[in-house]
Amino acid sequence: MPSHPERLSAVRIVLVATSHPGNIGAAARAMHTMGLSRLVLVDPRSFPDAEAVALASGATAILDDARVVATLDEALAGCVLTIGLSARPREFAGRVLALREAAAEAIAQCAFGDVALVFGTEMSGLSNDELARCSVIATIPANPDYASLNLAAAVQVVSYELRLAASDGSVWRAPRFEPASFDEIEALYAHGTRTLADMRFLDPQMPRRLLPRLRRLFARATLEKEEVSILRGILARIDQILGRRERS
Amino acid sequence: MPSHPERLSAVRIVLVATSHPGNIGAAARAMHTMGLSRLVLVDPRSFPDAEAVALASGATAILDDARVVATLDEALAGCVLTIGLSARPREFAGRVLALREAAAEAIAQCAFGDVALVFGTEMSGLSNDELARCSVIATIPANPDYASLNLAAAVQVVSYELRLAASDGSVWRAPRFEPASFDEIEALYAHGTRTLADMRFLDPQMPRRLLPRLRRLFARATLEKEEVSILRGILARIDQILGRRERS
Repeated sequence: MPSHPERLSAVRIVLVATSHPGNIGAAARAMHTMGLSRLVLVDPRSFPDAEAVALASGATAILDDARVVATLDEALAGCVLTIGLSARPREFAGRVLALREAAAEAIAQCAFGDVALVFGTEMSGLSNDELARCSVIATIPANPDYASLNLAAAVQVVSYELRLAASDGSVWRAPRFEPASFDEIEALYAHGTRTLADMRFLDPQMPRRLLPRLRRLFARATLEKEEVSILRGILARIDQILGRRERS
Repeated sequence: MPSHPERLSAVRIVLVATSHPGNIGAAARAMHTMGLSRLVLVDPRSFPDAEAVALASGATAILDDARVVATLDEALAGCVLTIGLSARPREFAGRVLALREAAAEAIAQCAFGDVALVFGTEMSGLSNDELARCSVIATIPANPDYASLNLAAAVQVVSYELRLAASDGSVWRAPRFEPASFDEIEALYAHGTRTLADMRFLDPQMPRRLLPRLRRLFARATLEKEEVSILRGILARIDQILGRRERS
């Protein structure tokens, strides 16, 4: 998959007539966790505000750089794609996409210019007039009986999908250690078979069931060199104990 | 594609040692928007709390039904899959998946029993000891320079992915055999620790290195019930041999 992290810099998050400054701060934090940086506030009730700063946590730079405008049209000026977020776009005439599809389209269009994701008020979302100014509506799949995401939570989910759409899906991986070779693993199975037989653990009636189960288990784990050493160390210790018992 | 919305009722959201009751309320709201309902609180600083109720908005029923327990083990008891959320699981033994893959696996395993999604504290996430109790770690793809999602925002993104996985299905194939539960796996580790000590295989100088390596190996494999039986059978046979040796 192509990776376009730089396209996130073409995304504007537009919050319309936000009532609670804390939500603006929390939205900025949500954006920053996903590598978004451009916040546009349309007629916010209170901004700047100490509560916004408090909830922005490490993302106060986004608040410092936020643009405050009087109308939605100013916020959307120059955009090549405008996407409104709405749970129930009943009156909307245009295309309605699930968030994941909308995010893919947004990132694709970022190659051509700015793309806006538009969020309405905490109480009632985007008005019909505001929705009409958007070229696409994105809906976050949600519980039909309670689709009321907190504003910053919605910004978090949208930012997350935008980041995934812009990246190749790569994720931090646990460090792996040197894998065991085929020969080392076969030697382990041979040793294990001997020792389990010496222990009289292998049921002579059905030896074929146990060994394939153990092979299957360790194959799923993809054994590392050091793990083979540990397992062979345990087997060797059992051999030693069995030897002592037989001598005594 | 199969759709399994009912599987969301097998999901437990486990919050460990949450400091701010407001985050518990906001997490409950996030869960409710995605159709999740089962909240388990491990040793919360303050609960019940008026701030939790205020931020739960329409989701106070989830707070009313929340289970409060003293330890993570109690919260995970009976689960067939335990998934810890962590941004940088450096010390983790097992499999690390991107959230989307982890959500698909979670919903698949919900067919067999409860699945826990485990979230650490606001300040420092899950400890290494807590991570070791999880069979899988899920990482939310995020800005590498600022991966600090608010707790409730993380619960929102995770709940959203679980809902999508439960509704549109995914290509992940259900396992053919029944997975071992958390309790069965912990009992295996406890038995193994005893037997390895009796065998004098555990180096008293550095017992801490061997056990995490074995946990890591078996966590990668995601143990099945029958495999745990086989391994405990081998341990029981060793116990028997040791007993005989000591008597002789």
